[in-house]
Amino acid sequence: MLDATQPVPSTDSLETLVSQEVERQLGAIKQELADLRERTPDNRLTMVVFSGDLDKVMASLIIGTGAVGMGLDVSMFFTFWGLSALKKQSAKRHQRDFYQRMFAAMTPDGTQGMGVSKLNFGGVGATMLRKMMKNQEITSVEELMELARESGVRMIACTLSMDVLGLTSEDLVDGLELGGVGAYLGDAAKSRVTLFI
Amino acid sequence: MLDATQPVPSTDSLETLVSQEVERQLGAIKQELADLRERTPDNRLTMVVFSGDLDKVMASLIIGTGAVGMGLDVSMFFTFWGLSALKKQSAKRHQRDFYQRMFAAMTPDGTQGMGVSKLNFGGVGATMLRKMMKNQEITSVEELMELARESGVRMIACTLSMDVLGLTSEDLVDGLELGGVGAYLGDAAKSRVTLFI
Amino acid sequence: MLDATQPVPSTDSLETLVSQEVERQLGAIKQELADLRERTPDNRLTMVVFSGDLDKVMASLIIGTGAVGMGLDVSMFFTFWGLSALKKQSAKRHQRDFYQRMFAAMTPDGTQGMGVSKLNFGGVGATMLRKMMKNQEITSVEELMELARESGVRMIACTLSMDVLGLTSEDLVDGLELGGVGAYLGDAAKSRVTLFI
Repeated sequence: MLDATQPVPSTDSLETLVSQEVERQLGAIKQELADLRERTPDNRLTMVVFSGDLDKVMASLIIGTGAVGMGLDVSMFFTFWGLSALKKQSAKRHQRDFYQRMFAAMTPDGTQGMGVSKLNFGGVGATMLRKMMKNQEITSVEELMELARESGVRMIACTLSMDVLGLTSEDLVDGLELGGVGAYLGDAAKSRVTLFI
Repeated sequence: MLDATQPVPSTDSLETLVSQEVERQLGAIKQELADLRERTPDNRLTMVVFSGDLDKVMASLIIGTGAVGMGLDVSMFFTFWGLSALKKQSAKRHQRDFYQRMFAAMTPDGTQGMGVSKLNFGGVGATMLRKMMKNQEITSVEELMELARESGVRMIACTLSMDVLGLTSEDLVDGLELGGVGAYLGDAAKSRVTLFI
Repeated sequence: MLDATQPVPSTDSLETLVSQEVERQLGAIKQELADLRERTPDNRLTMVVFSGDLDKVMASLIIGTGAVGMGLDVSMFFTFWGLSALKKQSAKRHQRDFYQRMFAAMTPDGTQGMGVSKLNFGGVGATMLRKMMKNQEITSVEELMELARESGVRMIACTLSMDVLGLTSEDLVDGLELGGVGAYLGDAAKSRVTLFI
């Protein structure tokens, strides 16, 4: 109803008025959308590769390259035993103390020397798995690693594990990122898929 | 302020104006909603069952049946050692080469022959665990497997692992789905909970 | 256009008009927002700690305390071998049957007696890891456990595992929660990050 004692808006100022009123009333919804957006995962998959077993590292690489192929961003955090997968085959020895040198001597440099998680029998199981993959014309773990890196899988070496094991970035293959638990959690908290392998 | 030189809108045209402005401002919100919807997980839980250890397979089945009971859709991808859980007890041997026959001989057919991941002592640990579960009147792993399947847990056998290990669908129990890493990632990327066991 | 025969709205009636139109057009959107909100994860990280290995328990504690430091709510569900981490060092023995007593005798009480998941050599590996952490001035696993609990990480002992292993709450450290698979899934389904360790 027209109330002659109140000012009546013109079309221009009315449009502004309507716009502002709509904006105001949508405020709560926009706020909620912003809140949901903050907690909605990005198109990302993040793995901790804790294991240094050939079979598990292989599984992580198959998942990682598959995910990149489906358009997901992929972060792989290699920590503890998993760091072996990133070691240069002819790693220089930076290990400072006795225990670090022992660990280095007992863990492989790169994927070549890795055993499998079960029935390894001092390397027989790993050799068998490699033969079985080859017989089925399935990409080797070294090729998978190369493929993953070329296809844009981010590979991050865990700095805390490097400190414990006495590894420096010179012991690891080139082109890696280094990061701690904060970097991991930053990626993981924005991921659709999070795995600990 | 009323500006007599400008047209003043009627209630009808005002309603149109409001309607259009609401529509316009909602456009961006609808777009963002569609974007969030695409990245918001479905009511789903997806597991990779990589392990062939009795204790871990049991844990995965307890989580799977529990999740179905809470109204979640559940997908379990059995891969590598985990495939043992799906093998027929009297699996015909389709293994084509020496290594595949070796692996088949050294891994159990079904859950009956599985060991535990620690302190197995050639099967003693597994027997102990089974006795302890029975003494507490807890469902056996075979019953859990049956329960999971009856309650609608989707069980998918990893086709890549089947190729490596020389297994065909005839070696596995009936009623399974077969799928590769793409099928896994499709489910995982829409899941609230993703685990690698 | 001004239609002199129709009333022109006041500011008050404009608000009502906008309100009604927004409400009308928003119905479906509000419904969808409510639906998305239900499936959007909270600011939470949930872990199953199934392993009783020193290295894996340590990794879970580092992730847990790191996540609390970044403002996430953290739930750690200790199950099966993982329950060892929660046992009192001088646990009274409530194990009712032979197998439970055997298991209790063969698994450590608390983190002190834990081995590492690889190269343990009857405890040598665990000792090495502890020395290496100490040499790098990295917090011990016992301090990490304390830190995690003080910083508000929720630690839940799996009741089903406790039944199987014959453990009562008196065997475990104080201040824990007890919960089953339902409690786990309730937390996991609302989490940004879900891990099985």
